[in-house]
Parts: sequence; structure tokens; C-alpha cells
Amino acid sequence: MPKRKAESNTMTDVQMHNTNGSTAYGKAAVNGLLKEESKPAAPKQTNRDDLQLVLQSFRLLIADLCQQFGMGHPGGAIGMAAFGVALWKYTMRYAPHSADWFNRDRFILSNGHTCLFQYANLYLSGYKAMTWEQLLSYHSERPDSLCPGHPEIEHEGIELTTGPLGQGISNAVGLAIATKHLAATFNRPGFEVVNNHTWCSIGDACLQEGVGCEALSYAGHLKLNNLTVIYDNNQITCDGSVDLTNTEDVNKKMEACGWEVVDVVDGVNDVEGIVAALEKGRDPKRTKPLFINVRSIIGVGSAVAGQAVSHGAPLGKDNVAAMKKAYGWDTEKVFHIPDKVKKFYEDIPARGEKYVKEWNDLLVRYTKEYPDLAATFKDRMAGKLPSNWASMIPSSFPADPTPSRKSNNMVVGKIFAECPTFMVGTADLTPSVNMTWPNYEIFNPPDLTPISGKKGSYKGRYIHYGIREHVMAAIANGLAAYAPRTIIPITSTFFMFYLYAAPAVRMGALQKLKVIHVATHDSIGAGEDGPTHQPVELAALYRAMPHLEYMRPGDSEEVAGAWARAIEYADGPSMISVSRHAIPQLPGLTRRAGVARGAYVLQEVEDADVTLIAAGAELSFPVSVARQLAETHRVKARVVSFPCHKLFREQPVAYQREVLRRHEGIPAVVIEPYVSLGWERWADAGVNMKGYGHSLPGKYIYEHFGYTTEGMAEGIEGFVREFKEGKVGRGEFVEL
Amino acid sequence: MPKRKAESNTMTDVQMHNTNGSTAYGKAAVNGLLKEESKPAAPKQTNRDDLQLVLQSFRLLIADLCQQFGMGHPGGAIGMAAFGVALWKYTMRYAPHSADWFNRDRFILSNGHTCLFQYANLYLSGYKAMTWEQLLSYHSERPDSLCPGHPEIEHEGIELTTGPLGQGISNAVGLAIATKHLAATFNRPGFEVVNNHTWCSIGDACLQEGVGCEALSYAGHLKLNNLTVIYDNNQITCDGSVDLTNTEDVNKKMEACGWEVVDVVDGVNDVEGIVAALEKGRDPKRTKPLFINVRSIIGVGSAVAGQAVSHGAPLGKDNVAAMKKAYGWDTEKVFHIPDKVKKFYEDIPARGEKYVKEWNDLLVRYTKEYPDLAATFKDRMAGKLPSNWASMIPSSFPADPTPSRKSNNMVVGKIFAECPTFMVGTADLTPSVNMTWPNYEIFNPPDLTPISGKKGSYKGRYIHYGIREHVMAAIANGLAAYAPRTIIPITSTFFMFYLYAAPAVRMGALQKLKVIHVATHDSIGAGEDGPTHQPVELAALYRAMPHLEYMRPGDSEEVAGAWARAIEYADGPSMISVSRHAIPQLPGLTRRAGVARGAYVLQEVEDADVTLIAAGAELSFPVSVARQLAETHRVKARVVSFPCHKLFREQPVAYQREVLRRHEGIPAVVIEPYVSLGWERWADAGVNMKGYGHSLPGKYIYEHFGYTTEGMAEGIEGFVREFKEGKVGRGEFVEL
Repeated sequence: MPKRKAESNTMTDVQMHNTNGSTAYGKAAVNGLLKEESKPAAPKQTNRDDLQLVLQSFRLLIADLCQQFGMGHPGGAIGMAAFGVALWKYTMRYAPHSADWFNRDRFILSNGHTCLFQYANLYLSGYKAMTWEQLLSYHSERPDSLCPGHPEIEHEGIELTTGPLGQGISNAVGLAIATKHLAATFNRPGFEVVNNHTWCSIGDACLQEGVGCEALSYAGHLKLNNLTVIYDNNQITCDGSVDLTNTEDVNKKMEACGWEVVDVVDGVNDVEGIVAALEKGRDPKRTKPLFINVRSIIGVGSAVAGQAVSHGAPLGKDNVAAMKKAYGWDTEKVFHIPDKVKKFYEDIPARGEKYVKEWNDLLVRYTKEYPDLAATFKDRMAGKLPSNWASMIPSSFPADPTPSRKSNNMVVGKIFAECPTFMVGTADLTPSVNMTWPNYEIFNPPDLTPISGKKGSYKGRYIHYGIREHVMAAIANGLAAYAPRTIIPITSTFFMFYLYAAPAVRMGALQKLKVIHVATHDSIGAGEDGPTHQPVELAALYRAMPHLEYMRPGDSEEVAGAWARAIEYADGPSMISVSRHAIPQLPGLTRRAGVARGAYVLQEVEDADVTLIAAGAELSFPVSVARQLAETHRVKARVVSFPCHKLFREQPVAYQREVLRRHEGIPAVVIEPYVSLGWERWADAGVNMKGYGHSLPGKYIYEHFGYTTEGMAEGIEGFVREFKEGKVGRGEFVEL
Repeated sequence: MPKRKAESNTMTDVQMHNTNGSTAYGKAAVNGLLKEESKPAAPKQTNRDDLQLVLQSFRLLIADLCQQFGMGHPGGAIGMAAFGVALWKYTMRYAPHSADWFNRDRFILSNGHTCLFQYANLYLSGYKAMTWEQLLSYHSERPDSLCPGHPEIEHEGIELTTGPLGQGISNAVGLAIATKHLAATFNRPGFEVVNNHTWCSIGDACLQEGVGCEALSYAGHLKLNNLTVIYDNNQITCDGSVDLTNTEDVNKKMEACGWEVVDVVDGVNDVEGIVAALEKGRDPKRTKPLFINVRSIIGVGSAVAGQAVSHGAPLGKDNVAAMKKAYGWDTEKVFHIPDKVKKFYEDIPARGEKYVKEWNDLLVRYTKEYPDLAATFKDRMAGKLPSNWASMIPSSFPADPTPSRKSNNMVVGKIFAECPTFMVGTADLTPSVNMTWPNYEIFNPPDLTPISGKKGSYKGRYIHYGIREHVMAAIANGLAAYAPRTIIPITSTFFMFYLYAAPAVRMGALQKLKVIHVATHDSIGAGEDGPTHQPVELAALYRAMPHLEYMRPGDSEEVAGAWARAIEYADGPSMISVSRHAIPQLPGLTRRAGVARGAYVLQEVEDADVTLIAAGAELSFPVSVARQLAETHRVKARVVSFPCHKLFREQPVAYQREVLRRHEGIPAVVIEPYVSLGWERWADAGVNMKGYGHSLPGKYIYEHFGYTTEGMAEGIEGFVREFKEGKVGRGEFVEL
């Protein structure tokens, strides 16, 4: 196995790439960037031996933490020690004792498996929740540990949950967009009320994962000069050295994507060089995001330095002892942090409070100078929507058949136009999703006027994400996490392509982030686009996903209900699933308030033989089928509209029984051109898809798969008969 | 809206980037590449006016096809006319009358919405199935149309179904890997029995989509010089000009990713220039994949040329008439193909048969020279596995608790080692998935010896995909589609990260491609990695996905059954879901043959009160719970092992009843730490997850969520009582 030569580089060897392709080397180029007045304390004021002690102490703390229970990811965190010091001690503006300070710098650990890196830094810099006892609970049996296997948003000092690779860097782009947007909206000359920086550490994975590639490309396009990515370039992945799987020229690729690139040759020890590079990140004169390529060594200082084995398992007792010995430490002592090291971090909380105070003072002056703007800003910080938002939803809608994707615009067009909280985006489907409003501005760099389209502005609230569904959803998570409800991000694409975005939608759900996803072209009604675009099985995923509310509203009235619920829902994302094609309106039947209960009775009938269930684009089907059943088959059918599984599941059993009446012996049949999986809980039979769809124009495809009124009525009549005759056993779902 | 200047460039203006960054312009640089002897016919032998007629004819055909039913994607296909001619007439080696010829060049339309481009070229070049009548059926009501909204693998001349963006380019990488691998394995000096080229057209989307980025990066790493990507650079996406969302330097990025880049300045008319660039693609002296940046104009020749509106809707009657007028055509004629144009394509089928004959002759000589190798090659072409593969699976396994990810290796280690059909890959989890065998070779360029790891070889059958789950699955689809069962690709990662790969897994399922996915760390047993890594809702997706067989085998014996089924299954992909942690073996209870039926009785009991269902890592739970129920609660519980929903769903009702006995009034309770969605069909209650997991080491997490024998027994006893008392209504699933 390879070993990279450890700890041998000099401390100031920084190599810089500038954007025209030429390269500058050495200390001189860097020192110009060191702006003493803007930094907490220049590392050069610290004795270099002391710095080494801090680094050693950090590495040994990580090694000991992994050793205690024989589990964990030590190597990465150990290798990252130096830029941890550079960030928490010298660069980031944050306040451990006011962890939620609005204008704090955000740090995202996109290589989330190195979580100990962050936990140890939170502890050392004085976050109150991260006690010593908590730090020791990493990989313990404590369910209340603040040190889970990957960082989690619930815990103080953690901006977003990371772990699934490529998500964190995408979230960081979202955070940087949030800052840009709020700054453009609320800052005034001399009053930079929002100017925090976003720092994101990544490993090789974020450069390889597709969503990471999307994020980096899009951040470069947006010229997010308030975003700095620190690439922990240790050249090692689980399978071995990176060149086993990736030999691209990373710096060149990043430059091609519109980033400024800085190399730090000795990422192991050169705190000063790293600080110089990081300070460059904060330089407001730069016009691009900054990519710092930090050459580090995984598990540095140990016998397995530079080796994949140090990634995901403790280094081993002997290795840790040898590390201590090599550092001249007592090999018997564990979890030892020298007083000098403690002292090194001591000033951080007070410094943080100073930042907070300065900002609070600024806010007071801002409020005097711009009282109205300040009031709006405070409302936004508090997550308040204009109190009249609900009244902007029309009380009724045209009775003509309407594609529910168009209903969307009728329902929220005015809200989007008038409530600046909403940032609405699409993955290149503006003409399909109908989510714009008059005079909307596009979030794009102010110096960009595309060949087609409007001049960019960071004030813009309409985001063209490009053909990048996955990062769209991941960026939305970042926007939502900047501060609760300060920005409510909307994403949109075809429902089928929310499968591309699913890992990010899931992360939003896991974190209970308030994002609203608008999924058009649902069901087989997507038509001639064919089976690749017909999401027959995808609803099962989103109906199964905890916290997410997947809703299929059945007409404009229900679209109004879905949006009202989505805007109000505080515990996670929503997905509003709408149709490409015009669907009948059911005035007098549908009730917007019914959506929030998940399902409700659309048509009741005396002495019912069967309950027909439907949702979304096919909600009118059971209405026709019920009529046909009554007229032709003497079967009495009641109809239930069922837009959301999760919401109905959460209703009391009494309400569920009132709606479905299965406990009375009335069987339920669901009509939905998705596979049945998930409906078996609520129905005894289904007119569902048994496989993939087919390419046929909308008007033919329903017929092709048997969704005709006559055909369905006949099948349902047969089922009801067999059910009554006891031919269908308890819990035997019948596919019609 | 912008209009790019149409059809004004000269015909030979080709600009070339070479790899050291310098650039060569013009005709001279290109003409050196025109190797007359290797090309079907040089375009210069065709009168340029005739070529223009061919291009006009093609464009008008597309325009008319979209016009007839008022639907379709005309713009892209029209803009791509010239490189269509260059490919089908002048470059590709294929045989329309022997469409499945093994050594044919493969063409993948990764921008699948421009399918008319391919359909028209299939028609013009003489594919028998693509009759004139069929061509006219695009977007018609015919369910048997060979011209669906996106190309579909079922149809002659289509290599793979495309449409979801980024998939096709990834499939193309798989096809190119297949060629490289088969060539390295079977070719001998003078006997190039496999040497086809893969051509792939892409639009802007494939450069933006994450999976496309993964594909391009990985293809560059692999130095696939048998892959040429033609970038239809029309600078337009649905939302407008590309620069609205993407301003990266594409050529520079491609070079950074290890590609050779050629620019074609006039992609609209310069057939000769395009042919020159394409021929460069086939040059075996090149050591990199080739990226041809073809500047084209969407909807060229029409009034909406260069505009997004020409992308997804017909050009309009007047626009089409104006196009015809401008070309000097009869504006009244529709679907007109001049005789000269027909004649232009006439020689293609015969030429194809000549290729086939030459190859057949080569095969005869090869068989004489290398009889054994030729026999193996023929078996591989016929998709035959060694007849004794099944006997390589051990008949029994150690009785100690075993992680089922380790059982995998016991079951298929020998098969992988001895059956060269299998190409086994992982997304950077070699140490976790246990899928290697002694002396395995790595598929990597022969000139690559990574810092850690073995020297590469295209003969290698172990693929390190890097941290790129999505493209791993998409490449596997390409490997599987090269020829049926000639290569059986295996992919592997954590189950949770098959959510990243889901769009490609789905495409494989839709196309019934034989790929086997190995998903480790399933259930909450993933432990301390926490909720980001615990796939509580993902099984719902894969249980709902048509054609895919998602299996959770419960011990080594069942792992053997799962693999036997997966290797035999001919109608789609399989996913074998295994545990990170050691699980008890159940010798005498589990039966490998039971897996293929989806579920079977593990323990029967007289006068049962309840049936307990479980699968995978938790299969031993109901065995313990049944004992506890009998001992402590006088409840008699039978136990069913339920590894696969799809397989059980496909069993006759009689078998389903025999296994579950719910029709006898015996309730069923499922024990699985996933959310219940999907189980409601088979059970009346469940001990399932109600939300996301938690970061706790494996031994604590089950307890944390109530999966203790005592706790479960108590809950189930209570449920059985309520069920008997009729407190649970028909079809009311109870979450315990």
C-alpha cells in the first residue's frame, strides 16, 4: 500500500492558479491576501510549535475517539486537522454561544463520514451543547448522542445533515444562494446585514458523484463568490488510491466550470498557508467561487497514513500508541488535551459574541435608516409570511377542464408574485410547469444577460437550475436550511424525474426541511412521451417516505387545498403531483379542506355496495364509473377522493372508517394508473397498472390500459359480486 | 428570441483541439484524417447540391412528421440532419438487413426526445421493420408503433431505450466497455472478431445531468478510444439559451476529463467536416474517447430556427410551408422524398451485408486457428453460461452467524472466478461488498497502474466504478444490452445508495436487462451510520418497480436461492439485499428453493393463532418471537419467510393461501424494520418502522426501535387478541 511522505513540506508553500491559466507559486503571492484587520488572529502570531501541538492534540483526540468503541472513521478527520484549525480558529465568523446567529458563516461537512472532525472542532471552539461527555459518546449506545455517525441538523452547530455523498456541497450552494439573495434584497450601502460566507469541505466523492458535479457546475455559473470549497485531497477512497477510478485534472475541470482554484501543497501542517487561501475566499473583489485544493494525508502521523484502511476503521491500539510516541506524548494517556491547546481555543466564544453584538448594533442603525425594509427583514428572519397569503388563493376556479399544472398557477401565481419568501425553481421546464408570474426576475449573476432571457439579478426569485434535477432538490434543502422559513424554495420538474432528485428529496424529508416540490406530468397521462416518462411505480416511494407529503389533487379546487396544506405544513417537504393534460373540474364535489385530511367522501350513497377511490388526474373516473354502475349494473358506488396517503394515515381510526366504511363490509376499489403497491392498505381491489406504460397520446393511453368507464364498471361489478359471494378472502387484494 | 445565422458557414471549417491545449484550424488538419479506404464512400464523391437535397429532404420529413398529428420534438432532429447523414451514410458499420449483427457499430441517441432523427435514419438506411407506414405512425394512436416518443430497445435498430437524460451516454460507455472487454478477451493478432465502435449523440442535458457527468469522467479515465460522443451543440434548452443555466467551458472540461476534443463549426451543412471528425473517432491510434462539439441550429431552416419553441412542438403549418418555399420545394407536397435522395441511401443494406459476410468469413478462419477460443466466443455470443454453474454453489454453509454480504461471496465466489460472463463492479465499496475472487483482474486501461492496486487490463472483469452509483447502474445496462447474456453485469453498493442509482435501475427494469444489483447494509442494521444510511422506505420503490426482483434472503441458504434465481431470471434485473451484520443461520428451516416462489412456510404449527412474516436480516426474529409467544402467551405462531414480493405476487392464489392462510381467518403480522407500505397486501399488522432510523451501533438499534423478542411478542399477542375480538376491521392494517 502507498504511503505519502508525511509532514515534510514547508509551511508556506502555496500554489495559486489564476483564471487565465497561469500559475503563481510561493509565499509572496499569498501574503498579499493576509488581511490582518479582518482576521480573528493571524496564525503567525501563534508559535509554530504551539500550532503543531494543537494539530497533534486534535489528531490524537480523533484516534482515541475511534479507539474507544472500536468503530468510526478516523483517517479523514485526522488528515483534515490543519484546515480545521484554519477555519475554526482563524477564518470563520461564528458564535459558539449564539449558535443560530443569523449572519454566521455556514460550514458544511460534505464528506460527512469525517464527522468527528466537526464534532471535535465544535467541542474545542466552545459550543455549549457539545460537552466533553457528549464528544465521548461517538458510536456509543446513547440514543441522545450529539455525535451520530454523520452530522445531523438537529444538533447545535450543524447546519445540515450530511453523509450521502455529494449532498453537502449541493446544500452549500443553496446556502450561498440564500446569502446572495438576501444580501441583494436587504443590504444597503454601508449596511451589510447579510454577508456571511459559506465554507464547505469535500472529499473525492463529491467530485465524482453526479449531484456534486451538477452543484459545482451550477455554482460556477452563478458566480457565487461567497462560497469556498475546501477539497480534502488525500487521494484515497475506500477502494484504494483515487487514480484507480479517477484521473481527471481536477483543477482544470474546476476552472472550466467557472471556479477560481488555489492549491495548498502542504495541507497537513501549513495552517498559515491554508488561512491565506481561506482569506482569499472571503475577498469580496473576487467574482467566482473558490476551490482550495488541499493536499492532505489520510490518517497522517499513524502507521497507516495514506492508506485506505485508515478511512473506516480505528487505527488500532498499537498504531495510536506509536503516534503518541512519535509526537513525544505519553502513550498511556487517552483523551488528553494539553492546557496550552485548551487555551488556544479559549477566546473563540467571546470573539463570537463580539460579532453578534456588532451585527445587532448594525441592525439597530439599519432599522433607523430603513425602517420598512428592516421590518420586512425581521419578518423574513422570523419566518413570517404576509398574514394575508391564504386570501390570495382564489375562492373558485373556471369549470372547464384544466390541466392541474395550470391550476397551480391560478392558485399560487399571486402568492409567488407578492410573497418574496418563495424562491421558485425549475429544472429546465419553465414552459411545462407554469410557475412564473408577471415581471418575475431571474436569479442569475447581475452581469449575465443570456442570449435568450432576462438579465440576471441576485434579487431574482426564479431559479433556472438547468437540466439538473438532483442538485435542484439538494440546493433547495440548502435554501430552506439557511434559516427556518426565511426562504421557502419551490422546485419543479416532471414527476418521473423526481426519481433523479430522490436522494435529495429524501434528505429534505429526513431533516424536515420546508421545500415544496411541484411534479407535473404525473400518471400515464404523460402520454406519448412513453414508459420512460410515465411514473407508474414512483408514487410508492414518495408515499413511503417519512415526513414527505405526496399529494395528488384532483382538480383546481383540490390544487388550492394542496397548496394551502403545503404552505402550512411545518414538518417536512411536500410534493404536489399534477397533470399534463386537461382534467374535468368537479365543482360542488371537491373540497379544498378535504385535502388536509388525506381523503374524504366525494359522493355518499345509501346502502352502498362498493367504495371507489381515486386521486389526481383520474379523480373524475370513479364519478363516471359510479354513474355507469348504477345505471347498467344496479351497483351502488360511493366515491372517495384520496389525494394523500400520509395525511389520511395520520387521521383517527374513526375518521378513516367514516371515509372508507370497509368495517361495515363495503369493499373498496381504487382506480389509479400506478402500480397498486401501497393501496392495499386502503382498498380490496384496484384498477392499477401491472407494468410499465406505453407511448400513446393521452387520449388513447387510458383506453389502451383499460381505463374506460364501461370497462372499469364491468370489472368492478364482477369484483363486487365475487366479494359478496365470499370468493375473495380477507386481505386478498384483487388486481382488476 | 435569438436566431443564430443559419446555413452560412463554409463546408469544411473544422476546428481541432489537441490535447496539449493548442488548436489547429481548417481543412488541412482534417483532411489527413479522411481515410478513403476505410470509409463506405467519401462525401466528396457526392455532389454537394445532392447532399443539400438530402439534408433538406430529411429536415422536411421531420417537420411533416411532427405536423401530421400536431405533436412531437422537431427542432433537435432537424438541426442534427447533417451528422445523421455523416453517420448512417458515411461512417457507421452496420447492416440494416442483419440488424443484430454481433460486431455492428452501436449508435445511442442519448438525447432521446429527438427520436425522429433516429427513426428517419432507420427508415432511409433500409431497416426492414421501419416501413414508411411505421414511420408515419409517430405520435399516432397505434399501440404497435415502432416510433414511440422515445426510442425503445424492443425495436429493430434501437440499441437501448433512451429519453431520461444522461442515461444514453452512460449506456454508451457500457457498450464501449463491453467491446473493449470482449476484444481484449477474444481478439488475436489478425483476428479482430470484436472491434465495433460506439457512437453516441448527446444534447446539452447530458452535459448537465449528474449521471452524464459521471459517465464522461469515467469514460475519460478508462481511455475508451472506441467511443465517440457527438454533442449536438445547438445552445438551446427548453427554458431558452444554454447560457441561462450553464456557462462552463465545455471543451476544456472534457479535456480535463481525459477526452480528445474536436470542434465542428458548421454542424448544419458540413457533412464532409463531420465525417472527417467521425473518422478520427475510429482511428485506433487514438488513446482517448473523442468528443465532437458540433455547432448546430435547432429547427434550422425554419422561422423558429435557434429558438426553444422549436424543441417540443411542431413548427406550425406556415413555418413548414415557408421552409419548403425557401428550399424551392412544392409547398403543397407533404412527406415527399425525391428519388435522388432515395437513391442516395440505396446502397446501404447491401454494404451492410458485405460487412456481415466479411465478419462471418473472419469467424470461420478464427475458428480454424483458435478452435477452443472460438467455441467459448460462440457460447458467449449465444449467452450460454458454463452448464455446471449451478453446481458451483455450495450445498451447505457454516452454521455460525454470518453477515449475508459475506454469504454472497460463499455463494458466487466460485461462479465469478470461473464463469467469465460475469463482470462484477462496485461503487467504491470493495471492502464492504465482498465480491472479489482470487487473482481477479481489474478493468482499467492497460497502461494504468494505480498508486494502490493492480495494473489495469481490459480483460479485467472487476470494475471499480468510483463513487458513482448512478452511472454504475447505467453502464451495467449498456454492458447487458451489448448482446443478451454475453456479459452479465453485477453492481454493488449500500442499499441506501441504490436510491442514487434508481433512475438507471429503473431503465434496466423497463428494458428487461439482465443486471444483478447487490445491495448491502440493508435495514436499520446499517447501525451507527445513522438515518442517512438506513433505507427505511427504499424497499417500497423496488418492490413496486415492474420486472425488478428485489430479494431479501434470510441466511446463507437463502442467499444461495436468491443468486440461483437471479442468474436464471431472464426478464429483468434482480436486486439482492444483504446485511452488514452477522445474522443467525437457520439450517433445517430455510430452503433455497423457497426463494424463487417469493415466500414459503418456514415453520408450520397446528391450530395457529397467527402467522409471522419476516425476511432478510430479521428472518430469525419471528422464530424467536414464535417461541416466546408459545412459552409466555400461549399463542401459536407459524412463520413465513418472505424474501421477494414480486415472486410471491406471481404465484397462484392457491399457493399464496397455502403459505399465508389468511383466508382461514389466521391474521398475519410482518416484522421488518422498513416502513410498512407494501406489506399491507400480505399482512394485517406489522412491526415496522414509523419513521427514519437512528445512529446507534447495530446491537443497540434494534432494541431502540422495539425489535426485542419480548417486546414484539407482547405487541403481537395484544394484536391477536384484538383481532379475535373483532376490534380490527377488515383490511385495517395495525402498526404495532
